Amino acid sequence: MEYKPIIEQVFHNISNEKPTGMVADYIPELANISPEKFGIYLFGLDGNNCEAGDSQEKFSIQSIVKVLSLTMAFDIVGEKIWERVDVEPSGTSFNSLVQLEYEKGIPRNPLINAGALVICDILISELEDPENQFLGYVQGLSGTTRINYNPQMAASEKKHAFRNAALVNLMKSFGNIHNDTNRVLDFYFTICSMEMTCEELARAFSFFANRGVNYFSGNRIISSSKSKRISAIMQTCGFYDEAGEFSFRVGLPGKSGVGGGIAAVYPGHYSVAVWSPLLNEKGNSVRGMKALEMLTTLSEASVF
Amino acid sequence: MEYKPIIEQVFHNISNEKPTGMVADYIPELANISPEKFGIYLFGLDGNNCEAGDSQEKFSIQSIVKVLSLTMAFDIVGEKIWERVDVEPSGTSFNSLVQLEYEKGIPRNPLINAGALVICDILISELEDPENQFLGYVQGLSGTTRINYNPQMAASEKKHAFRNAALVNLMKSFGNIHNDTNRVLDFYFTICSMEMTCEELARAFSFFANRGVNYFSGNRIISSSKSKRISAIMQTCGFYDEAGEFSFRVGLPGKSGVGGGIAAVYPGHYSVAVWSPLLNEKGNSVRGMKALEMLTTLSEASVF
Amino acid sequence: MEYKPIIEQVFHNISNEKPTGMVADYIPELANISPEKFGIYLFGLDGNNCEAGDSQEKFSIQSIVKVLSLTMAFDIVGEKIWERVDVEPSGTSFNSLVQLEYEKGIPRNPLINAGALVICDILISELEDPENQFLGYVQGLSGTTRINYNPQMAASEKKHAFRNAALVNLMKSFGNIHNDTNRVLDFYFTICSMEMTCEELARAFSFFANRGVNYFSGNRIISSSKSKRISAIMQTCGFYDEAGEFSFRVGLPGKSGVGGGIAAVYPGHYSVAVWSPLLNEKGNSVRGMKALEMLTTLSEASVF
Amino acid sequence: MEYKPIIEQVFHNISNEKPTGMVADYIPELANISPEKFGIYLFGLDGNNCEAGDSQEKFSIQSIVKVLSLTMAFDIVGEKIWERVDVEPSGTSFNSLVQLEYEKGIPRNPLINAGALVICDILISELEDPENQFLGYVQGLSGTTRINYNPQMAASEKKHAFRNAALVNLMKSFGNIHNDTNRVLDFYFTICSMEMTCEELARAFSFFANRGVNYFSGNRIISSSKSKRISAIMQTCGFYDEAGEFSFRVGLPGKSGVGGGIAAVYPGHYSVAVWSPLLNEKGNSVRGMKALEMLTTLSEASVF
Repeated sequence: MEYKPIIEQVFHNISNEKPTGMVADYIPELANISPEKFGIYLFGLDGNNCEAGDSQEKFSIQSIVKVLSLTMAFDIVGEKIWERVDVEPSGTSFNSLVQLEYEKGIPRNPLINAGALVICDILISELEDPENQFLGYVQGLSGTTRINYNPQMAASEKKHAFRNAALVNLMKSFGNIHNDTNRVLDFYFTICSMEMTCEELARAFSFFANRGVNYFSGNRIISSSKSKRISAIMQTCGFYDEAGEFSFRVGLPGKSGVGGGIAAVYPGHYSVAVWSPLLNEKGNSVRGMKALEMLTTLSEASVF
Repeated sequence: MEYKPIIEQVFHNISNEKPTGMVADYIPELANISPEKFGIYLFGLDGNNCEAGDSQEKFSIQSIVKVLSLTMAFDIVGEKIWERVDVEPSGTSFNSLVQLEYEKGIPRNPLINAGALVICDILISELEDPENQFLGYVQGLSGTTRINYNPQMAASEKKHAFRNAALVNLMKSFGNIHNDTNRVLDFYFTICSMEMTCEELARAFSFFANRGVNYFSGNRIISSSKSKRISAIMQTCGFYDEAGEFSFRVGLPGKSGVGGGIAAVYPGHYSVAVWSPLLNEKGNSVRGMKALEMLTTLSEASVF
Repeated sequence: MEYKPIIEQVFHNISNEKPTGMVADYIPELANISPEKFGIYLFGLDGNNCEAGDSQEKFSIQSIVKVLSLTMAFDIVGEKIWERVDVEPSGTSFNSLVQLEYEKGIPRNPLINAGALVICDILISELEDPENQFLGYVQGLSGTTRINYNPQMAASEKKHAFRNAALVNLMKSFGNIHNDTNRVLDFYFTICSMEMTCEELARAFSFFANRGVNYFSGNRIISSSKSKRISAIMQTCGFYDEAGEFSFRVGLPGKSGVGGGIAAVYPGHYSVAVWSPLLNEKGNSVRGMKALEMLTTLSEASVF
Repeated sequence: MEYKPIIEQVFHNISNEKPTGMVADYIPELANISPEKFGIYLFGLDGNNCEAGDSQEKFSIQSIVKVLSLTMAFDIVGEKIWERVDVEPSGTSFNSLVQLEYEKGIPRNPLINAGALVICDILISELEDPENQFLGYVQGLSGTTRINYNPQMAASEKKHAFRNAALVNLMKSFGNIHNDTNRVLDFYFTICSMEMTCEELARAFSFFANRGVNYFSGNRIISSSKSKRISAIMQTCGFYDEAGEFSFRVGLPGKSGVGGGIAAVYPGHYSVAVWSPLLNEKGNSVRGMKALEMLTTLSEASVF
């Protein structure tokens, strides 16, 4: 299928609308991003890629990284990962403590903050040099070494980390955090500070479209079955308490970040990344969701 | 793809395992079903159908019917249906009142009991003869007139309806039920008492696989976009607080019923119905979930 | 102690303030009461009674009756009453379903709606003619036969009873209602429709001040220990999610009703009833709470 | 009234019963206390004191201290203290995070952990040398300088402080903690490590019985009205999710600690302290509650 004209139309239509939403403003590094930014990159398994707007500009991928840390941890520890985190949609906000308390410190899924912190704890236990090994892993996924963390972003997040500190301490009280709580928070904020362009992000998610195989190296990243499972988790849990809405409107597995990025996958066909910093009240990119809805509507192709 | 050998292998393997789980026992009509029953029917859009076991025996489809009543109501009232019911996974049990109270009488989605009761209320308002018109609608979907309600089942459910009565009264107190509460409960239990064989059920769901078009008549049931949306709701909400687990293991949109049936859809390819009355503690068919997981694993084909 | 000048001062000061709050408006019988009404009656065990304002006018005592139905049921069935209702403050609104669901149909205490419905269910099981026997019981407590129900009020409440219907059905689903749900609701609304003057209400509560003995007949109503226990429940649970506030400001066990009445008790000294229909957002009489706070502040006498 | 024979009977009866319950075991300092310990001390305003058992042995007063830190903070900052903490019973466990999240970081009352942490934060802001000034304050209340902290206990608690760290971080995220979270935790654990004998504890609470005036020095500690208010909070909130039960059985305002102590007050008459380390599943001393229930039953005197 020819996605180029569709991407162009999507970009054109949405660029012409007056943008709505709010930039994340709890740290200066996010608050100072221009709200006008808007980029798309679609990476087709058939070799046809297309892009529009600010698709070559770096942005903070934030929570999108949680899918990749989950992939690495799932690959390392296998099925026993599910003893420490569930796979159910939370039905609540991304940083809620309520369910965590009722459910004795086992997070609902690995894509809410609590679950991502458990995944960080696992990687710290399993890796010798977690920060560098994880960075190398993501560079490998996207076939480029130009990806890096933003230490200033990480430091700034750390200063406002009280709610995440509450989560990690609560889980520690239930025995579901094995390392020092500050060590876990540090690693968490470091990986969330990763910066990519739309192209790099679409490339990093392309192995899901390719059912677990790295398109660039030809190496298998994870089994086809595990790729399916992580995609299923994205579909049901990738957008916090708006997961149903995204699934309903877009019909693709995906993950959003508070920096305004969204990565999504059409298994067997393509991966796609969108970036626009203006967020709705649920913390998801307004233009990003619209762009992906328009993409699956115009192409008449989604997983459903 | 040739599904016949796969279906046969699935049936063979699972039949040979000692079955686990419990038959639903809150009414005699369900408690008296033989726990040994086990049937599968796969309806392929390419004309290749295959079946195994008790696939031609009638069973009570129960909550599976909620997908079809949603389809009819969505078709009649259009997008404004979402003012009265949301599309988010609930993260809680199928008959919980908690979220309903916090969220002012708006059910999380149309596939939990509360949401299905709102859909019933809508159909009562919109149809002149709701019971007969809905029955005719489902008969049309599956291309057979041999489908009917079981009035004894409906009457028996009604006698144990206290929790559903609580739900409908709570929503009425918030103004989200427009008809008499007993009328709504009657209609709800009547449609849940519908009986089908695996073949009939697979046929009734085949228009989702066919993106909204009736395979038998060639008529469009709902738009492609609405078909995608209802499938998305099945994917995120079809299995109550086990929706993530089903999505994770099976990777198809589907819906279960307390009678032990499950209907699922692989858009563009097939619909499938499984029936085995033994339920896990979440109320979903143990063998049914296993059979569908094995089907997507052996065929290496799911929506992800 | 001489309470007459204090009551007069309380009445004078509060009458001169501009009243705030809202009259309960969910049924016409309550909405049509004049918001200006304001009465107090203090019944002293030393024989010195005093009153001010509209203290001889009938009003709907509503939830205040729950203390008296509890007393009758506790007397009849004894300690085993606590198998069906707890004695803990709820921390939530008077008609919440949330805790009831988490706690498997056992209401937090007998003074929230759910608990009062269980008490009604018990009285229906234990009495031959519940309505008349309970009315006679309350007439006996206050030493007058001029007390009666208001059938029009009861009928009007019944029409808006959806949330109470939800509560009673939810408890029935857990097995904690033994009689027909409509029978329980009927009895509940009948007793809540009871009308009294401030004098009659203060007299009806005087046996708590007198540690279980009827001041008028000299008969023991309940044991001293049971009187203490019911007073303790009033103290911790009598004002829904404002119980702490009332205890904090007033320092007496008491119970409010949505009709604007409050009955309170100073054990060993007096009972007191206040009536003013203007309610705060928690559903408690604004002037009633102020009057009682001023009474215990000016007299420098509370249970603490 | 002559309490000596009653205290002796209470001690005799309960000593002869086989003790039930569990010693708090989350830190070695508490786990190693002999479960046989049992002491009572009643401090009468009429000068008649009486005691039994291990009433002169030091124990860790733990949460009982929260009443005294509240008193000091209430005295210093006055009514504006209630902008940062409410006075309602929580209806939940002592260290729950659920309500705190729903209620935006404002704890339900100052006697649950979250509320006590806010009080600590206030004292840190208001005092130059919080640890020493608070110790001096308590020494003054009980008229003895033999009271001190146990630094080893404080250090040990700090090591298992994950849930309290979650609470304080969650409140900090809502802006309701003004000092460094570790500083607040340090002060909290220090004051909770205070050790007293039953006699010292009964003396420390005697100003509540004396309506705000220090019995030993004759100085007013707090106004009569504030004394009433703090007593009211003890009555409704002093025993976590068992506050209703304690009020119901004992009928006095009181506060328990996980070290097995309970302090209670009969305003105008006496203060009393009991100590027995065996706790029920709610964390309150089994023998302590029994002793106080027997005391108010035998003396036929409670606040109700």
